[in-house]
Amino acid sequence: MKTIPWEQSGAFIERFSIPPTGDGPLGGLRFAVKDLVDVAGYRTGCGSPAWLETHPPAVVSALCVEQLLAAGAQCEGKTITDELAFSLLGENHFYGTPLNAAAPERVPGGSSSGSASAVACGLVDFAIGTDTGGSVRVPASNCGIWGWRPTHGIVSIAGVMPLAPTFDTVGILACDADVLRRASTVLLADESRSDAMPMTIRLVSDLYDVADANVRDALRPTVERLSDVFGVAIRHTSLAELCDDPSAGAADVWVDVYRRLVGAEAASCHGAWLAATQPTLGPMTETRFKFAHALDRSRLNEVIGRRERYCRQLRRALGSRDLLCIPTAPTIAPLKGEVKLGRDNDYYGRTLAFTAIAGTGRLPQVSMPLATACGAPIGLSLLGAYGEDAFLLDVANAVGERWTAR
Amino acid sequence: MKTIPWEQSGAFIERFSIPPTGDGPLGGLRFAVKDLVDVAGYRTGCGSPAWLETHPPAVVSALCVEQLLAAGAQCEGKTITDELAFSLLGENHFYGTPLNAAAPERVPGGSSSGSASAVACGLVDFAIGTDTGGSVRVPASNCGIWGWRPTHGIVSIAGVMPLAPTFDTVGILACDADVLRRASTVLLADESRSDAMPMTIRLVSDLYDVADANVRDALRPTVERLSDVFGVAIRHTSLAELCDDPSAGAADVWVDVYRRLVGAEAASCHGAWLAATQPTLGPMTETRFKFAHALDRSRLNEVIGRRERYCRQLRRALGSRDLLCIPTAPTIAPLKGEVKLGRDNDYYGRTLAFTAIAGTGRLPQVSMPLATACGAPIGLSLLGAYGEDAFLLDVANAVGERWTAR
Repeated sequence: MKTIPWEQSGAFIERFSIPPTGDGPLGGLRFAVKDLVDVAGYRTGCGSPAWLETHPPAVVSALCVEQLLAAGAQCEGKTITDELAFSLLGENHFYGTPLNAAAPERVPGGSSSGSASAVACGLVDFAIGTDTGGSVRVPASNCGIWGWRPTHGIVSIAGVMPLAPTFDTVGILACDADVLRRASTVLLADESRSDAMPMTIRLVSDLYDVADANVRDALRPTVERLSDVFGVAIRHTSLAELCDDPSAGAADVWVDVYRRLVGAEAASCHGAWLAATQPTLGPMTETRFKFAHALDRSRLNEVIGRRERYCRQLRRALGSRDLLCIPTAPTIAPLKGEVKLGRDNDYYGRTLAFTAIAGTGRLPQVSMPLATACGAPIGLSLLGAYGEDAFLLDVANAVGERWTAR
Repeated sequence: MKTIPWEQSGAFIERFSIPPTGDGPLGGLRFAVKDLVDVAGYRTGCGSPAWLETHPPAVVSALCVEQLLAAGAQCEGKTITDELAFSLLGENHFYGTPLNAAAPERVPGGSSSGSASAVACGLVDFAIGTDTGGSVRVPASNCGIWGWRPTHGIVSIAGVMPLAPTFDTVGILACDADVLRRASTVLLADESRSDAMPMTIRLVSDLYDVADANVRDALRPTVERLSDVFGVAIRHTSLAELCDDPSAGAADVWVDVYRRLVGAEAASCHGAWLAATQPTLGPMTETRFKFAHALDRSRLNEVIGRRERYCRQLRRALGSRDLLCIPTAPTIAPLKGEVKLGRDNDYYGRTLAFTAIAGTGRLPQVSMPLATACGAPIGLSLLGAYGEDAFLLDVANAVGERWTAR
């Protein structure tokens, strides 16, 4: 991976260097921290000038930062995030658009935009991101790097700005599968190793089938090769089959549940601050919070009921060595400026249909940069059973080894 | 349960009435909300005058409040919490000590002190509590009512002040097992019913054995009766056996992991606010935060590693129909004023050894008011497998029915 000067990357909001606090498996590696995550002595800006102004500096670093420093990694600074992490695009109204080094005319994806950019520009080996609705996975896919969203609730979010607590996670973006596994393993605090042989890999056909044609064409040989690597036939499944519920077959049901529930939680997390400070927000963020505040909260039980039903069914459907396979996103990264408020919003709905599975099911997911379409990267994702992050990362690492060796 | 006038209970910090927003399984029931949880239009005070002063009013109610209102319950006000929820005692330096109706000379337990008191005084049918390190279970045990701590991460904590996110949960305190199950089921959004027959019930001997003699004596016939009710022999187990690790046999290891990790997360959640506002805190709370800030954060990996190892082992040790049984606490409620800063702090260490199992393992637990010792209540607890809250609540309900029918 060639290195692009950090000024050109536009990835960092603040550069500084914090030496490791211990020796360990990450010795010699450099990382960056999304500016949604506390670093002692710095204000966490969360991609919003108004937030930056109304919040005091952090006095301690978030647990995830301490874990990585103690394992031997060096912190190189804080990276741009989409405003209040409430976007998948990577275009911050106030702080600009970090460079997508693999496709410079396209967006890096968000909200962990700067973290993905810093890794893809070769400025750090890995970076901390957060993922509520795809904010690690989509930028990993767009920028052609590796990304891990953990099982919900395992990695501490203390010291990380909340957006929607039943979906919020802290994950890792990395330059290769080995670094991804090493850094993620430190956050997981799970060093158990498996033989990394999946029992089943099931392609979720209804998502695969609605991806762009160029994405399907690009991923078809990748999926076939995955089958060869592990010697297991890739079976096909559907969301309705996985959830044992015909209603789950409509992708827009997942998107609707995701949007309402994240909107309701985001209104709880930020409503009082918004009302008290009347901050200036970017137009897209303002629109999202308007939607969040307009939700009829007396009708949440049906939404939560459906979410938890799907979550329980997914848990039942996945044994500890079972994996699901989907394109990380239905499209390559949009061109910069292409996705605009009030039009082309279909980008969001289509993308959330892919990312909402892991979020709804609280499942771990790894996005692997195994293909390109029209010259831009597209990720293939594996999802594992609840709590089987170590196994999933082993599988991804095995994929990385075989792909590199080809 | 006889009703005590609310002025005498000292349970409420603010009384108001919010009618239900829908019909449902909680029709006709009244509930109260711990003042750590947002109710639209009110400031969430978190048991701290300084917090109350420096935070704006909530503009929306927390999701858990909306869930209960939509299911037909009526909200009767907000209840006193221990300061910033950082205590198990129920004696708030600023707002006083809610009445323990079952043992008026003793503390109600905390931090959900007012919620437990309001239920035990017959003022509401159930109440929302939160439980990081025992804050639902201990007051339930002390006050002779039913209490549920859910599987971590299932019930949304959006709109609830965080203390230590990998331990924080929203739970229910209730007047009887039926109300407990009905209210908890609404928060879980899981209406599945089981035959409520446990495969195994294992008494954790090393905890049982270190409880006070009067607690052991009081609970012995209760445990025997539990065996009869379900027709399963109560087997004995130990923490070391459950975790397949001799180190887990020392109760103080669990307490040490709990204290360090909760301290580290609490410093992340509140450190910036404490530094920026220099609030006046009660002496016990001040001491706890001093401990939290003095922690060497570069040594967290070992603590997190141990916590996650125990958590994974507990998950492996418990099948979906397996239960663990422990006294909820090692003692009946202390006398008011008995537990003081700098002496008798053994109360905390001893109690945390009992409550840390569910917290560390992210497991659900129900405390059942099945015995008294020296005239004061003591709870017997059942812990279930991860995500098996509905089953656990069914079992507790079956216990409630058999006990009542005696």
